[in-house]
Amino acid sequence: MKTLNIESLVAELKELIGEDRVSQNETVLEQHSKDESYHTPILPDVVVFPKTTEEVSRIMKLAQKYETPVVPFGIGSSLEGHVIPIKKGISLDFTLMNKILEIREKDLLVVVQPGVTRIQLNQALKSYGLFFPVDPGADATLGGMAATGASGTTTVKYGTMRDQVQDLEVVLADGTIIHTGNMAAKSSSGYQLTGLFVGSEGTLGCFTKLTLKVHGLPEFVMAARAVFPTIEDAVNAVVDVRQAGIPVARAELVDEQSMHVINAYSQTNFPEKPTLLFEFHGNESGLMEDVRLTKQILEDHNCRDFIYETDQAKRNQLWKIRHHMAYAFIHTYRGRKFMATDVCVPISELAGAIYHARKALFKSGIPGGIAGHVGDGNFHISLMIDTNNEDEIMRIKKLNQELIKYAIERGGTCTGEHGVGIGKKPYQILEHGTAFEFMKKIKDVFDPKGILNPGKIF
Amino acid sequence: MKTLNIESLVAELKELIGEDRVSQNETVLEQHSKDESYHTPILPDVVVFPKTTEEVSRIMKLAQKYETPVVPFGIGSSLEGHVIPIKKGISLDFTLMNKILEIREKDLLVVVQPGVTRIQLNQALKSYGLFFPVDPGADATLGGMAATGASGTTTVKYGTMRDQVQDLEVVLADGTIIHTGNMAAKSSSGYQLTGLFVGSEGTLGCFTKLTLKVHGLPEFVMAARAVFPTIEDAVNAVVDVRQAGIPVARAELVDEQSMHVINAYSQTNFPEKPTLLFEFHGNESGLMEDVRLTKQILEDHNCRDFIYETDQAKRNQLWKIRHHMAYAFIHTYRGRKFMATDVCVPISELAGAIYHARKALFKSGIPGGIAGHVGDGNFHISLMIDTNNEDEIMRIKKLNQELIKYAIERGGTCTGEHGVGIGKKPYQILEHGTAFEFMKKIKDVFDPKGILNPGKIF
Repeated sequence: MKTLNIESLVAELKELIGEDRVSQNETVLEQHSKDESYHTPILPDVVVFPKTTEEVSRIMKLAQKYETPVVPFGIGSSLEGHVIPIKKGISLDFTLMNKILEIREKDLLVVVQPGVTRIQLNQALKSYGLFFPVDPGADATLGGMAATGASGTTTVKYGTMRDQVQDLEVVLADGTIIHTGNMAAKSSSGYQLTGLFVGSEGTLGCFTKLTLKVHGLPEFVMAARAVFPTIEDAVNAVVDVRQAGIPVARAELVDEQSMHVINAYSQTNFPEKPTLLFEFHGNESGLMEDVRLTKQILEDHNCRDFIYETDQAKRNQLWKIRHHMAYAFIHTYRGRKFMATDVCVPISELAGAIYHARKALFKSGIPGGIAGHVGDGNFHISLMIDTNNEDEIMRIKKLNQELIKYAIERGGTCTGEHGVGIGKKPYQILEHGTAFEFMKKIKDVFDPKGILNPGKIF
Repeated sequence: MKTLNIESLVAELKELIGEDRVSQNETVLEQHSKDESYHTPILPDVVVFPKTTEEVSRIMKLAQKYETPVVPFGIGSSLEGHVIPIKKGISLDFTLMNKILEIREKDLLVVVQPGVTRIQLNQALKSYGLFFPVDPGADATLGGMAATGASGTTTVKYGTMRDQVQDLEVVLADGTIIHTGNMAAKSSSGYQLTGLFVGSEGTLGCFTKLTLKVHGLPEFVMAARAVFPTIEDAVNAVVDVRQAGIPVARAELVDEQSMHVINAYSQTNFPEKPTLLFEFHGNESGLMEDVRLTKQILEDHNCRDFIYETDQAKRNQLWKIRHHMAYAFIHTYRGRKFMATDVCVPISELAGAIYHARKALFKSGIPGGIAGHVGDGNFHISLMIDTNNEDEIMRIKKLNQELIKYAIERGGTCTGEHGVGIGKKPYQILEHGTAFEFMKKIKDVFDPKGILNPGKIF
């Protein structure tokens, strides 16, 4: 900050939006010092709770005057330290901007404020027969999900957050308010800014309104579980299902280590073997055909245990395997911190990448298991870190680095869905080459003083 | 150009890549002076035919030295003057860069040079059981389609060109070669440059290699034709089909005027009434169910004539209605030039927009008909212009302007798929507001001397 005059900034902020929405309370600062990752917490100088776009614009103008960092904050569920104010300054909390502004049924669009969470949105959409498909696990805010470029289990059918964002209202570093898109299903007019802002992690502007695509609730849903003798069989089976053009809505892999941890935590007795979980969305006759064909392909890859469920309660039961996985690890290894790798590789490289990852994991001696959105080539190693053990931290860093280098050398990426934040910064030049310099120049166009979430991505 | 020293530039170009691939032949210059639009042709100074990325890079460095405009040229099928070298300079023709470099079956990806056309690609993909879905009508080059952000009849299911481009190799204005993406199905790493470059119309860089998504050929295809008493019924029916979540692969509207012109040209006797054409892709049992549900919805909107075809020859026959439309107009109004409006509106505004467009068309007294990709809210008025008739040109401009204002005021866009080029420049600020300034700043980052396709978009 130019003058280090925090007191004066806080006084001006209080004058701007009122005392009650500007906080330096220690608990509040502490809540805004961290996310769900293993990265070291750092307290912001002040937390501000805006209610309107105009307030955000005025706060940004003030931040610009003081050259104070501004870090947008949703619910704090990021996994690479995105919301940690590493250069201190203002944590801009969007909790109070949590209204669903418009449900445009016919257009299959909704307009929301950034603080709306995905479960909140889906509850509101239910009575319209609609749903919002992106499911990263956590009940994240939609502003945060757009900022991170989040995705999750349904991406194989519905795409990532970037595919769902139709338009963003953005407040730039100097307080200017822009719209990146419009309400039309397609446009060839001007440069596409929406895709550029999605995944920009608060470094280009603050989202104050999002227009998102929503989808008709599928007429019929089926879930299936398939067990394989080896992880290679499971991965090869998914590759073939995808290539056959069967429109699966989810395709998740859980390895034997993870199944063991899940059984112990949930007191279940699922086979402790590499397992695929599928979901299918469509009409009943089409799905029966899809499931039949899927089963046939899986059996060609040595699957000997295939069950499917149409009943909702039983489907939920089946998917609990996947949803409880992180909790199961956290519960089993109390006192340690959860960390997940996040590479994504071309599908043709997936079997090799998982084979390599398992070898590296066993060699590292760290407890963990592999799971992933294998329909997209994206997989995670869930690792439980003892953050006081320097040697272990070094081994985990080395493991992560090995996985990332392997992925990038084969046309993959260091992060499929968690984003860059702090943790993936060291790999940006390796992954993007010369293009990275131009990303930095684009950052300078929108934020010449570098006050927007400094120290992230770049 | 800095020195106006064309002779010296041509000499250097010939030294760089050889005499035979640098042309100032009048016929060649004339071929590169125009596209398929009504915009006035302008001759380039020289046409160059590179064969490799490295050559393109060296040509760009030379162009930078001479400050000569460079206009990338595919096959000349653009519709808004994109390839017309309005500031003269180099027309960079990608005809010789027309190789399919790699078909990555398992990844559902292909790597192509920019001069490959979509039909050429589809022929190569057939034996793999794959296809490339974007179909703008013309057999355009894939480089051109990416540069324009093209789409067409299948967008309602498969998305636009932007959705298919996985990675671009781009030569920037200073000769730098970058990659905008990778081969992984998804990534949250760094800013997304791919979506920014798609639709940049040659103003940010020249594409020298494209990695594109391809899809499994559908197991089963059905086509259907539905006739309605009024255009409003037809549009409302499409809106309901879409909202019901039925995954149609194409949904096209042809109005009664267009049906009349088509019948006269093709010597057919289709009902001269507002007609919807559908295509469905999937497995047989699923499609029978989709068609049954679609028919039911259409009948609720007064459709009394619904036929569907599964046989490929009969399906092609049915789709000829749509594919022959532009030729039918051109044939019927010889001596005039074809021009198409291209607004796209939110689906909820489509019935109103088409009602407004018909009124404006009748009032203008210009011969034309309405057709469109109504599943996306995108429609065209096909107009036949007498380019010698000043008064008529004025009336057409006024008509186009009225349509565009109507669309933008309702959250739509001035161009759904044809791009900005020359024709949509006047509407950019109206559509993008303050964001347009930032698009200009991004242009300056990549092309500070403004040599890349100057006078387009901006």
